[in-house]
Amino acid sequence: MEQNEKDPLIKVSSGSLSYRTEEVVTTNDETNAESSSWPPRKQNRSTETVAVGSLDVLSAKYESLDYEVCENHLFLEEERKTGYSFYIRKNVARWFIFLLIGVCTAILGVIIDITIDVLSHIKYGYIKDYIDHCLTEDCLYVPYLVWLGFNVGIVLIGSFLVAFVEPVAAGSGIPQVKCYLNGVNMPRLLRIKTLVVKVIGVISTVAGGLAGGKEGPMIHAGAVVAAGLSQGKSSSANKDFGFFYYFREDHEKRDFVSGGAAAGVAAAFGAPVGGVLFSLEEGSSFWNQSLTWRIFFASSVCTFTLNIILSSYHGHPGELNYYGLLNFGHFENLNYELFELLLFCFMGVIGGILGSVYTYVNYKLTVFRMRYIKARILKVLEACFVAAVSATVGLLMIYTLDDCKPLGQDPTEHPVQMYCRDNEYNSIAALWLQVPEASVRSLFHDPPASHDPWTLLLFMVIYFILSIWTYGLSVSAGIFIPTLLTGAAWGRVIGILIGYIYPNATWLDPGKYALIGAAAQLGGVVRMTISLTVILIEATGNITFGLPLMMTLMTAKWVGEFFCEGFYDVHIHLQAVPLLDWDPPPLSSNLFASEVMGYPVVVLPTIVKVSKLVEILSSETYCGFPVVDKITNESSQPSLLYSLMESGGKLRGLILRSQLLIILKNKLYIESDETWNHQNLGRNLFRHHYPRYPTIKDIYIPEEEMNFTIDLRPYMNPSPYTAQHVASLPRIFRLFRALGLRHLIIVNDSNDVIGMVTRKDLARYRVWRHLGHMGLEELKISDKI
Amino acid sequence: MEQNEKDPLIKVSSGSLSYRTEEVVTTNDETNAESSSWPPRKQNRSTETVAVGSLDVLSAKYESLDYEVCENHLFLEEERKTGYSFYIRKNVARWFIFLLIGVCTAILGVIIDITIDVLSHIKYGYIKDYIDHCLTEDCLYVPYLVWLGFNVGIVLIGSFLVAFVEPVAAGSGIPQVKCYLNGVNMPRLLRIKTLVVKVIGVISTVAGGLAGGKEGPMIHAGAVVAAGLSQGKSSSANKDFGFFYYFREDHEKRDFVSGGAAAGVAAAFGAPVGGVLFSLEEGSSFWNQSLTWRIFFASSVCTFTLNIILSSYHGHPGELNYYGLLNFGHFENLNYELFELLLFCFMGVIGGILGSVYTYVNYKLTVFRMRYIKARILKVLEACFVAAVSATVGLLMIYTLDDCKPLGQDPTEHPVQMYCRDNEYNSIAALWLQVPEASVRSLFHDPPASHDPWTLLLFMVIYFILSIWTYGLSVSAGIFIPTLLTGAAWGRVIGILIGYIYPNATWLDPGKYALIGAAAQLGGVVRMTISLTVILIEATGNITFGLPLMMTLMTAKWVGEFFCEGFYDVHIHLQAVPLLDWDPPPLSSNLFASEVMGYPVVVLPTIVKVSKLVEILSSETYCGFPVVDKITNESSQPSLLYSLMESGGKLRGLILRSQLLIILKNKLYIESDETWNHQNLGRNLFRHHYPRYPTIKDIYIPEEEMNFTIDLRPYMNPSPYTAQHVASLPRIFRLFRALGLRHLIIVNDSNDVIGMVTRKDLARYRVWRHLGHMGLEELKISDKI
Repeated sequence: MEQNEKDPLIKVSSGSLSYRTEEVVTTNDETNAESSSWPPRKQNRSTETVAVGSLDVLSAKYESLDYEVCENHLFLEEERKTGYSFYIRKNVARWFIFLLIGVCTAILGVIIDITIDVLSHIKYGYIKDYIDHCLTEDCLYVPYLVWLGFNVGIVLIGSFLVAFVEPVAAGSGIPQVKCYLNGVNMPRLLRIKTLVVKVIGVISTVAGGLAGGKEGPMIHAGAVVAAGLSQGKSSSANKDFGFFYYFREDHEKRDFVSGGAAAGVAAAFGAPVGGVLFSLEEGSSFWNQSLTWRIFFASSVCTFTLNIILSSYHGHPGELNYYGLLNFGHFENLNYELFELLLFCFMGVIGGILGSVYTYVNYKLTVFRMRYIKARILKVLEACFVAAVSATVGLLMIYTLDDCKPLGQDPTEHPVQMYCRDNEYNSIAALWLQVPEASVRSLFHDPPASHDPWTLLLFMVIYFILSIWTYGLSVSAGIFIPTLLTGAAWGRVIGILIGYIYPNATWLDPGKYALIGAAAQLGGVVRMTISLTVILIEATGNITFGLPLMMTLMTAKWVGEFFCEGFYDVHIHLQAVPLLDWDPPPLSSNLFASEVMGYPVVVLPTIVKVSKLVEILSSETYCGFPVVDKITNESSQPSLLYSLMESGGKLRGLILRSQLLIILKNKLYIESDETWNHQNLGRNLFRHHYPRYPTIKDIYIPEEEMNFTIDLRPYMNPSPYTAQHVASLPRIFRLFRALGLRHLIIVNDSNDVIGMVTRKDLARYRVWRHLGHMGLEELKISDKI
Repeated sequence: MEQNEKDPLIKVSSGSLSYRTEEVVTTNDETNAESSSWPPRKQNRSTETVAVGSLDVLSAKYESLDYEVCENHLFLEEERKTGYSFYIRKNVARWFIFLLIGVCTAILGVIIDITIDVLSHIKYGYIKDYIDHCLTEDCLYVPYLVWLGFNVGIVLIGSFLVAFVEPVAAGSGIPQVKCYLNGVNMPRLLRIKTLVVKVIGVISTVAGGLAGGKEGPMIHAGAVVAAGLSQGKSSSANKDFGFFYYFREDHEKRDFVSGGAAAGVAAAFGAPVGGVLFSLEEGSSFWNQSLTWRIFFASSVCTFTLNIILSSYHGHPGELNYYGLLNFGHFENLNYELFELLLFCFMGVIGGILGSVYTYVNYKLTVFRMRYIKARILKVLEACFVAAVSATVGLLMIYTLDDCKPLGQDPTEHPVQMYCRDNEYNSIAALWLQVPEASVRSLFHDPPASHDPWTLLLFMVIYFILSIWTYGLSVSAGIFIPTLLTGAAWGRVIGILIGYIYPNATWLDPGKYALIGAAAQLGGVVRMTISLTVILIEATGNITFGLPLMMTLMTAKWVGEFFCEGFYDVHIHLQAVPLLDWDPPPLSSNLFASEVMGYPVVVLPTIVKVSKLVEILSSETYCGFPVVDKITNESSQPSLLYSLMESGGKLRGLILRSQLLIILKNKLYIESDETWNHQNLGRNLFRHHYPRYPTIKDIYIPEEEMNFTIDLRPYMNPSPYTAQHVASLPRIFRLFRALGLRHLIIVNDSNDVIGMVTRKDLARYRVWRHLGHMGLEELKISDKI
C-alpha cells in the first residue's frame, strides 16, 4: 500500500477537507479568494461501508508501477562501468525481444485459431449430420442433446479453470491491460499461469458456443507473452535464465507489454497500425518515437507470421490472405454517396443507445453477480447454464423459423435443409451453425436477398441478450465479436429496409450497412476512438471507407457518453482501480497540493539504525519514504509525524520499501567481504528480486545486528520529483501523468517535506457528467474491496 | 532571448564547465566520484567566431514556445467566472475549428493541384506539338526555346517572391514545422504572407519543371491555415474578428498547428492516419487522446473534401478515387514471396547509401550557398539557371536517346514519336514531358517492358543530381516527389535486371520494385519511421504490403544513420535551431543541473518599483524572471546577481517578459477606474496582445509614474516547475520535454533560486555518432547566426 493510504477513511471523513483548506489559506495570499465553494463538487464524505458494485470508490489495494528511474549511486556506477557498448547491446536486445514478441504472439494466435477451427468443425458437422438425419427419422431431440453436450462439456473445462485456477483470466482482459499500461500494478495479470488458463479458456468459450470472442483475450495473451519474454526468468517456475536481466524494471517491462498488446491486436484483427494506436491510446502517457517504432515492428512481424502460418494451414501457402484471426473478408466496392453519411450518423446514434443499454444491463448483472454468485462452483454452474441456453435458443430458432433461401453461393460450411425445399437451406441455421465471426462475415458479404429482416431482428435481439449475459461469466471471452455480430445484424436489417423504400438505389448494399451497424454498436460499447477506427479500416482492408467509419464511431461515442460511461471504464470502476485520465479534471485549478496530498508522512534520516528500519517496515505499509537530513525529533517512536506545514526536515531523497527490504535481506549494512560482493553486484542485486520482493516477515536479523546503522544515501533516489504545497491539482496531475510517477513529494517554502501525493490522491477527483450536467466528484477510498 | 543566454560565449569558454563542477561537488557527497571525465565528451570550448555552415552550433536567437498554463490570479478568476458551460463551448469551438482546418486545407490543396495541372497541360501540350511539328520541319531549337521560356518565366515569379517577399517560404517547410511543433518559435513561419508566397511558389516550382514536389509545402500550408483559423484575428492585416480569443495561447495554437500539419499530409498523400502519425512523430511530446482524435477528424475531413472536389474536377463526381494530391495509382496484386524480403532489405541498403549521398552533397551545396550566394538577385538568378538546365537536360535526353516502345496502353498524356517508328513513342520523352508525380505513377504501373534499364539509369542519375541542386534554391519545393522518382527509377532498374536473371519468375513485377526503391530512397533521405510507413501504405492503398515497406524503410534508416544524419535534421542544424530530441542523450546522468543551468539569474521582488522594472526590461533581454520574496541586497543595481549556491531569495513565482510589458503598457500599476476595467478584462488583456508583444521602447511612462509600485503576485505564475541543483540532466530533460517547458528554475536545498535552465541549455548536449563510435558533444551557442 502506498504512502498516506494508511487510514483511508480518515481522508474522506466529513470535514477533513475544509480543515485542510483553511490551513492552506494562511500561507498563500493569492489564492485565498478561491476556497472550495466553486466549482460545484459532489462530495462523498460518508464513512459508512462501501456498497458492493458502487462506481465511486477506489480500492486502496492497487499499487502503482514505478516508471521513474532511480538515479542513485548504483545506477551511476553501472552507467560509468558499462558505457556506450552496453547501451548499444541493450538496444539490440530490445529489438530482438520485440521480434520474439511478434513471432510468439502470432504462434499463440494460430494455436487458438486452429484449435477452435477444428473443434467447431467437428461440433457443427455432427450437429448438421444429426439434424439432416433426424428430420426424416423424427429424432430431433438427438441433435439438441449433442449440441447441449458439446457446449456444456467444453465450457465446463474453461470455466472450471478460470474459477478455480486463475480468476484473473476471466473476461476479455482488455480493461486489466489498460489499467496496467496506465500504471496500475494488476496482481497476477502477467503470469504464465494466467496465460495458460486464458488460452484454454478462450478456446473453450468460442468452441463451446458462448457469445464471446477471442480478440480481447488475444490482446491479453500478447501482453503476457511480452512480459514473460522480456524478463528472461519466470518467477512462477522459479527459473532465472540470466539474460535480459537489465530489463527487470517497471518502465522497461511496461514498454514490452505495450508491444505485446499491440501484437495481440495485430494478430486478432490483422491490424498492425491499429495495434500501435491501441497501445498508445490505452497506455502511453509519453510518446516515444523509437518505442513506437519498435511496437510497430512487433505488430508487423506478428501479422506477417500469423499470415504465413494460417495461409499454409488453409492450403494457400504464399498467398498471404489471412491477416488476422478476425477476417472481415474482401469488400469489393465500398463506395458511398455523400448523403449516406447522414444515414451513417443516424446509425451511430442507434449504436450509441444500444451500446449504453448493453453497458448498463451488464453493469447491473455484474453487481448482482458480485453480491450473490460468490461461490466458485456457482460460477461454473452459471457458465454451463448459459452454454446450455445458447444451444437451446439456437436450436429453437432453427426448428421454429422457416427462413429458406436457395442454395448456390453457399455462405456457410454446414448448410442445413430442415423444412426447406430441395435446393434451399435454412438461413437462420446458417447463422447459428458456425462460429460467430463467420456469421459476421456472412452478414457483411452475403448477397442482398440472403436474409429475412424479421428473422435477423429476432436473431439480433437474442444474441444481444446472450452476449450481455455472457460477459462477466467465469470464462475468458471478449466482447468484440458478439458486439460486431449484433451490430451487423441490425445494420443489415436497416440496409434491407432502406432497400424496400428505394428499390432502385444502386448505392445500396446491405453488407455495407451491416459493416456500419457493427462499427456503431462496437463504438457505442467500447468508446475507443482513433485506434478502433484504424482497426476497422485495416480489418476491412479499405482506406476509402475511413471517414464513414469515423463519423459513425464518433456519433456512437458521443451519444453513448450522454448516457453512461464506456463498457471498459465501467468494469474498471467496478474493480475500483485508480485509473488516471488523460487530462486533469476541468476547472480543478483551485484545488491545491496541500488539499490533495496525504499527510503526515513517515520520513527516514539519511543514516538509520537497523532496529528502527525494521520497526518502521513492520508497522507501516507505505511503499516510499522520503529521506531527510534534519531530524528535529529524535524520539523512540517508529515514525516521525509532522503536522501540516511543520518541517519534516530538508528533503534529501526518496527510498522505496522494496529497496529497504533488499538492503535488510542482503545485510548491506554489514561491511563484510560478502557485502562487498553484493555491492559490486550493484543494481543487479535489486533486479534479481524484481518483481516479487521479500516481506519484512521473511527477513531474519540477529539481535546483535540490530544496533548497526546503515547509510541510505547510496541507495536512495537523490533527486525525486517534488511539488510545492501551492501547486494546483492540474499541475500536479500533469507532472504525475507525463512522467509516470508513483510518489510525488510535496514540500513547503523551505524545501521541507510536508506531504506525499500518490496515484489514488489524484484518481480520487473525477468529473461526473449526467445528461448534460457536470461537476467535480470526490471518490471514496476503501481498503475493503 | 531567453534568460541566461546573455553572454553565450562565456558559457562555452574554456574551463567554465570544470569550474562549475568543482563547486557542485562540495554540496553533493554522493556524486563527487563522477566528475566530468566520463563518458567521453567532445567539447567545443573554443571562443572563436563560428564558421558558416557548421553543424555544431545553436543560435541564441530562437526562442521557445511556452506551453505551460500560467495559473495566476486572472486564470483562476476566469475559470471561476466562466464555469463548465464555457468549458463545453470551448470544446465545441475546437471541433469546429478542426473541421474548418480540414476543409480549408483541402481547398488550398485543390487550388494548387488544379493550377499546376492546367499550367503543365498547356506547357507540355505546346512542347509536344512543337516537337512533332519540328521533327519534319527541322526546327528542333523551337521546342527547346519554348520549354526554356516556360520554365524560366514561371520559376522567375516564384523565386522572386520567395527571395524578396518572404524567404521563410523557401524549401519544403517540413523542417520548420517540425521545429515549431518541437517547441521552437520560428519567426514568420505561420503568417498569411508566408502562406501566399508558399502557394504561388510551389505552383511555380512544379509548373516550372524544377525537381521539386508540392507535398512538403502542402504540410506547411496546412500548418499556416490552422494557425490563422484558430486565432480569429490576423496580426498582419491588423484585423481582430474577436472570436476564438480564448485560443490565443501557445499551447492551444500548437494543438491546432498539429492538426493543420496532419491535414496537410492527408491532403498531400491521401493519408489521414499517416497525417496523425506525422504530427505525433514530429511534434507531440505528450500524447493526448482527445487531441489525437480531433487531429484525425481534421485529416479525414481534409481527405474527404479533397476527394470530392478533385473527383468532380476530373469528371467522375461521386466516385471518390482522388484521395490526395499524390496518387500512387491502384496496385492490382502486391503479393510477395518470403525470400523477396531479403531483396527488399538489400534495396533498403542502397536507399540508405544514396540517401546519405543526397544529404551530404546537398549539405555541402547549402553551405556553399550560405557563403557565396547571399544577394537576393543572385538567388533568383540561380533558380532560373537551374530551371533552364532542367529543360536543357530533358530535351537533350529526348533528342539523343532512342528508347522506342510500341504505342498502346499509353502511359502518358503527351506521347512523342521523335525518331521512333509509327505506332511507337519515345519512352524517355514520356518521363520528361509530364509532372514528376505522373512519372512516379508511370514507373509503378507501366507494363514490364516499357522502359530500357540503361536509359532509366541515366534518367535516374540526372534527376538525382537535379534534385540535389534544386533543394535549397530560393523556391518553395519539397523533396518527396523527386526522391520518390529517383528511387522508383533505380528500383525499376533492379526489377528489370532481376527479370533478366530469372526470366520465368511469376512473382516479379518491376512496378513492385519501383515502389520499394522509392520507399528505400525516401527512407534513406528523410529517415522518418512509422509515419512514413503508414503514409506509403495509405498512398498505395494496400495494407498487405506494410511489412515489406517497413523493413525497407527500417534498413534504409539504419544504413543511412551509419553515415550521416537525416536530411531534415541536417537542415535544422544548419539553421542552428535548438531542437530537443525525444530522449535525453544516453549516459548523461552524471551531468547535473548545477552544470547545465545558466546563472546568475535576474530575479524580481514581489512588489517592484516601476522605474526598476523599466530599467531591468531595458537592460536585460531575458524572457522570464523568477519572483522572490526575500531580497537580501536592496542596492540600486538593476539586477540582483548571485553566485552559485548563494541565496537568490525564496522562490515565489515566475513572470514572463511579455506579461511585464503588458502590465506597463496598460498601466496596471495605477489604481484608476480605467485600470479596473483592464483588470476585469483579465486574461483577455494578455490574449489581446498575443503573439506580438510591445517592446520596452514602445512604452512611454511619464516621470511621475516612475515611483509607483506594482504587485506582481496577481500576474505571476505562482507555482512554476522547479528542479533541485542535484537533479541529473536526463531528469531535467524529461521534465522539460514532457511538459513543454520554456523555463525551469533551479533551486537549492532551501528553495532559493540559483539558476535557470532553458531549451538551449538542454539542446546543447547531443550524442555524436560516427561510424559506430559515439559520445556526448557540447554544442556552441552563438548569437551571430
